[in-house]
Amino acid sequence: MLSQDNLRAALEFRREREWQQFHTPLNLAVAISVEAGELLEQFQWSLPNEVRPTDAQREAVEHEIADIAILVAYLANDLGIDIEQAVKRKLVLNAKRYPLEKARGSARKYDQI
Amino acid sequence: MLSQDNLRAALEFRREREWQQFHTPLNLAVAISVEAGELLEQFQWSLPNEVRPTDAQREAVEHEIADIAILVAYLANDLGIDIEQAVKRKLVLNAKRYPLEKARGSARKYDQI
Amino acid sequence: MLSQDNLRAALEFRREREWQQFHTPLNLAVAISVEAGELLEQFQWSLPNEVRPTDAQREAVEHEIADIAILVAYLANDLGIDIEQAVKRKLVLNAKRYPLEKARGSARKYDQI
Amino acid sequence: MLSQDNLRAALEFRREREWQQFHTPLNLAVAISVEAGELLEQFQWSLPNEVRPTDAQREAVEHEIADIAILVAYLANDLGIDIEQAVKRKLVLNAKRYPLEKARGSARKYDQI
Repeated sequence: MLSQDNLRAALEFRREREWQQFHTPLNLAVAISVEAGELLEQFQWSLPNEVRPTDAQREAVEHEIADIAILVAYLANDLGIDIEQAVKRKLVLNAKRYPLEKARGSARKYDQI
Repeated sequence: MLSQDNLRAALEFRREREWQQFHTPLNLAVAISVEAGELLEQFQWSLPNEVRPTDAQREAVEHEIADIAILVAYLANDLGIDIEQAVKRKLVLNAKRYPLEKARGSARKYDQI
Repeated sequence: MLSQDNLRAALEFRREREWQQFHTPLNLAVAISVEAGELLEQFQWSLPNEVRPTDAQREAVEHEIADIAILVAYLANDLGIDIEQAVKRKLVLNAKRYPLEKARGSARKYDQI
Repeated sequence: MLSQDNLRAALEFRREREWQQFHTPLNLAVAISVEAGELLEQFQWSLPNEVRPTDAQREAVEHEIADIAILVAYLANDLGIDIEQAVKRKLVLNAKRYPLEKARGSARKYDQI
């Protein structure tokens, strides 16, 4: 998550502003939830048949996704988590939890299939 | 966000299980909020002096971060959003919103500094 | 929100367990977000035509709603907020923001109608 | 949750605006999460020593609490859930999950005490 260039720029952005003091793991998790809420707000009150976002929604979604990506990158950096390794491991775990024959076409959670 | 390898694996994982039908933008935004809530839960009820996560918390955080990264990658993919470009643009915007002299050491939002 | 009896019982439950120390406004807001995420999880991956919850979903929703109601009551109590008065005032504000002729049948936010 | 007067006013507010069509259980759960995120935003980036909210924060919190209370009341109404009964039952369940001798002064979850 985040190219080396983007991660470096994001960390430098934070360092220059002396914002690490506010970036406890709790506060970063709070900020990620706040941004996830703002992302969700873009689709609030949409009717079942409105599956395609408008251009304005798409633009707003792009901003929210960027915010989430930056905050997640900060949290992972601060806790020494390698996101790409974590994703790789999670995909392996998910493949076990959701075997093809059981999970195909089903939206059930792994403990209910 | 997500290396080409991880993104390819995540998309293949979804395609094999025929889960695209559940992945409307709304549903992905819902799932991201749910995972952000699970991430936040790891820090629930922590006292101000408990800033360092335990090993168990860190492990759980790693899983939640992976979930968020995968879901955000799906949403970006489906809406044709380039996350790295979005992050780059957002950092430029944030640099304007939070000029060094005003933002240094301050946790205020850009419209309040 | 919450009858006098339920509020008294909820406050007594907390006092006996000496949990006020964990109930900073931030921590209560965190807990409300976590519970809102668990509520949302009940409807995760639902398809547009699945508008009626199952009995199991309804039961889970009941639990999550109770959790949210209790936590919101704690937060309001601690900050000296009268929820019924706040709701009354909000409904008056919303009536101004969403005049009948503009808002009828529209899901738009008040600053976009 | 919500006095009979406030509930009646909130339902009438919705009926007049013909908003029931947007109020699927999923959409209401989404809206509750969005509002919980806005509530959480009031405490974003706060430092451990900032436990008392400012007047502006308190005012904003009051609005968000009202929004959550109204939305939760809609959801409960639509699913035929009696919030006061649900809270009563939840407090009984919590008393079993968190017996005094084990839970006093501890922030651990019931499955970890």
